[in-house]
Amino acid sequence: MPDQLRVTVWNEGRHEKKNAQIAKLYPDGMHAAIAAYLQACGDLDVRTATLDEPDHGLGGDVLPTTGVLIWWGHMAHHEVKDAIVDKVCARVLDGMGLVVLHSGHYSKPFRKLMGTSCSLKWREAGEKERLWVVEPGHPIVQGLGEYIDIPHEEMYGERFDIPEPDALVLISWFAGGEVFRSGCCFRRNKGKIFYFRPGHESYPTYHHQGVLKIIANAVRWAAPVPGPDVFFGNFKPLEKLETA
Amino acid sequence: MPDQLRVTVWNEGRHEKKNAQIAKLYPDGMHAAIAAYLQACGDLDVRTATLDEPDHGLGGDVLPTTGVLIWWGHMAHHEVKDAIVDKVCARVLDGMGLVVLHSGHYSKPFRKLMGTSCSLKWREAGEKERLWVVEPGHPIVQGLGEYIDIPHEEMYGERFDIPEPDALVLISWFAGGEVFRSGCCFRRNKGKIFYFRPGHESYPTYHHQGVLKIIANAVRWAAPVPGPDVFFGNFKPLEKLETA
Amino acid sequence: MPDQLRVTVWNEGRHEKKNAQIAKLYPDGMHAAIAAYLQACGDLDVRTATLDEPDHGLGGDVLPTTGVLIWWGHMAHHEVKDAIVDKVCARVLDGMGLVVLHSGHYSKPFRKLMGTSCSLKWREAGEKERLWVVEPGHPIVQGLGEYIDIPHEEMYGERFDIPEPDALVLISWFAGGEVFRSGCCFRRNKGKIFYFRPGHESYPTYHHQGVLKIIANAVRWAAPVPGPDVFFGNFKPLEKLETA
Amino acid sequence: MPDQLRVTVWNEGRHEKKNAQIAKLYPDGMHAAIAAYLQACGDLDVRTATLDEPDHGLGGDVLPTTGVLIWWGHMAHHEVKDAIVDKVCARVLDGMGLVVLHSGHYSKPFRKLMGTSCSLKWREAGEKERLWVVEPGHPIVQGLGEYIDIPHEEMYGERFDIPEPDALVLISWFAGGEVFRSGCCFRRNKGKIFYFRPGHESYPTYHHQGVLKIIANAVRWAAPVPGPDVFFGNFKPLEKLETA
Repeated sequence: MPDQLRVTVWNEGRHEKKNAQIAKLYPDGMHAAIAAYLQACGDLDVRTATLDEPDHGLGGDVLPTTGVLIWWGHMAHHEVKDAIVDKVCARVLDGMGLVVLHSGHYSKPFRKLMGTSCSLKWREAGEKERLWVVEPGHPIVQGLGEYIDIPHEEMYGERFDIPEPDALVLISWFAGGEVFRSGCCFRRNKGKIFYFRPGHESYPTYHHQGVLKIIANAVRWAAPVPGPDVFFGNFKPLEKLETA
Repeated sequence: MPDQLRVTVWNEGRHEKKNAQIAKLYPDGMHAAIAAYLQACGDLDVRTATLDEPDHGLGGDVLPTTGVLIWWGHMAHHEVKDAIVDKVCARVLDGMGLVVLHSGHYSKPFRKLMGTSCSLKWREAGEKERLWVVEPGHPIVQGLGEYIDIPHEEMYGERFDIPEPDALVLISWFAGGEVFRSGCCFRRNKGKIFYFRPGHESYPTYHHQGVLKIIANAVRWAAPVPGPDVFFGNFKPLEKLETA
Repeated sequence: MPDQLRVTVWNEGRHEKKNAQIAKLYPDGMHAAIAAYLQACGDLDVRTATLDEPDHGLGGDVLPTTGVLIWWGHMAHHEVKDAIVDKVCARVLDGMGLVVLHSGHYSKPFRKLMGTSCSLKWREAGEKERLWVVEPGHPIVQGLGEYIDIPHEEMYGERFDIPEPDALVLISWFAGGEVFRSGCCFRRNKGKIFYFRPGHESYPTYHHQGVLKIIANAVRWAAPVPGPDVFFGNFKPLEKLETA
Repeated sequence: MPDQLRVTVWNEGRHEKKNAQIAKLYPDGMHAAIAAYLQACGDLDVRTATLDEPDHGLGGDVLPTTGVLIWWGHMAHHEVKDAIVDKVCARVLDGMGLVVLHSGHYSKPFRKLMGTSCSLKWREAGEKERLWVVEPGHPIVQGLGEYIDIPHEEMYGERFDIPEPDALVLISWFAGGEVFRSGCCFRRNKGKIFYFRPGHESYPTYHHQGVLKIIANAVRWAAPVPGPDVFFGNFKPLEKLETA
């Protein structure tokens, strides 16, 4: 099916191996849960990749043939090789979509593409999160209600040190007193980036239908666009100006 | 074909009747030229409407069943009835896309939705216009090259008094010394608006394949999104806060 | 003192006359409380105006000599004369700053300048509001901490139907479960507009030092800039193009 | 004078030493020409720094005591040490303003802060540039007319691979057929960044009064703001929710 958008779900994949409770939530890893949902959508061609595979599963023709890359990382950001990070960023600038999940805010590719620290406040208290839609006409919230409730999540709070998003689609409310820009769109050259907050490893967030729907919508929004080939460098003038 | 996006091409339709040279370029009006191109795309269901029809051709179920409205007006902006303007603006806030062409910058619906004067500089000298793509990853420039040349056009120049666009996709260069933000995206509540500069009535601009392709891309980009139903008014609190 | 920025604090001024409890909080009206703080800053020349004065206190040379206008209205938006609204909006486009407070979101000038409904959710439950700074480098949050707590306020919740702000500086958290874009910057032609959420008439919000400091900062940020005189209309070309 | 804003003008400083014609235009280097203008403004405390000084002139307390840094580089971007680049970027995120001039678009600090390639088109043909003001209410164009003409400059043309600016203030027109986003504002954490296009070393651009005025305005706009101290990390909840 050549017309399907090719999606690669990348996951660090360590928590699920080291912690029995997390393994119970995600027996095949968070990437598998996300990939299963996306594959079942019918319009997406989905594969997965993880940190501990050779080249982190992103070697060969994987990146060149990926339309949208999803990224989850946390405890091992520093183990991601710079050469791979550079390739991911180059592919984004060349048009590949990137959906960065939760603790991926601190991943090397996201920080490099943002140019800021991407730091934030956090708290692990299993508290309630309510994500409010602030742009109801945006394709990323297609088919959703006005808000999504997640009963138990890690808190992320402002100040979130990112450049001002090109569009701010979701803002989270946390029971403990914080707010967070939870759905943020960025364009970086030809590539679209969506940062989406939820997804701490110790909660069943990637089994939540609203969360999964937003990820699927974001993947379609971030699909590469066959736009102009851009020329950079020494450029020739218009040979003749009509008004001259 | 229930899945097709319904497009209404609105045109003042006066120049083509009053001026023989313009009638030669557009025997059935500019709206007919644009509609023919869009209809031939295959994925759009296109109709037209003009100022001199009852209710300007926008009465009954026309607006409620229109997904994207295209608007060209110039000499008779003041003849457009305020009641119709209010309906157009309400439909945009409710999700209908709006593509405003050329002198439509000064139309009542566009000015009302922008909240500014929408004034600009202009010159009728038939000079060369080159439209540069500044956002090559945007869906509106899909399938285009880095620029479009229009051999003869009316000049529009900055300062263009609009709110800062949510995305700036095209900037025009004119032989006489001006620049202009020619492709501007705005969201207003659930509706998407694209202002697109070219299209003076005395030039064959709406027979230009690049111009037509951008209009078609803009129509698809501005298609309504079935997002959340938004509630406004007195709202109840979360009944129980888990951390309490 | 010719160098001082001239500020006019406009208030509907009805609640304070009709309700004894509100009158106790603001014996001379909310405008007087705000004006007193601003005047004490030392760098501002402050006057007030209210709905029930002739021309709502904005006739003669008041608007032409006002650098920044602050606007609070609620129960009598519809009593503000359209001719005055038009003058206020014209002055904003010409460079006057506008700081819109609380229920002023639904005032005629703000809605006209935004082009949207400016609707929102609300609840009068005297609940806690915490305003988080999301742009710590913005001049409007100069001298503040990371957040401001207001013990009791009316709730405003998203979706707030405004165009995407040019800068989003503050987001509110409410105890009952909502978030709100509480500090929003807009430019409309030469004028700067700041919408600032807090200030329900039945709470002592305009005696809160953090709230008052933000209003003073916003006034200075919104001060008119002596920028270029902009020409709109028929414009002449560069006479000679050097490369020709 | 402790209240003066401290400005450091950084210049590569090589062209002026190697090329007699450039040395004639700028006997003490471009940095000296810019610094002399800024110092004469009266409200700025100006020093200079160049590549060939120890630590590129940015060691010791220079960066910590700089309020706004101006950056011009071209032929030796690669010679700027990464350790210094990291310090410059960290200072920007901490609130130092950064004004990047002309070929500084390709400097290490600017590219790192943008996260994109910052590539563009260029042509050395000594052609006419006209810079149009597109935001006449912005402080950076204070005291200017609607456009600035530079008789002879290097051409820079779109696509300019930068993130969408937070504000676009100036757009250039070039005689040979190009346009360019020439005055671009960005916020990156607490720091403000202004990219300003003009200033090829072989033309007397930094003796042009309009260009110098924009640089001075940009310096004042980019001045650090004493905003909130931001906490990042594990954060405590509100202890008691009033509505509970």
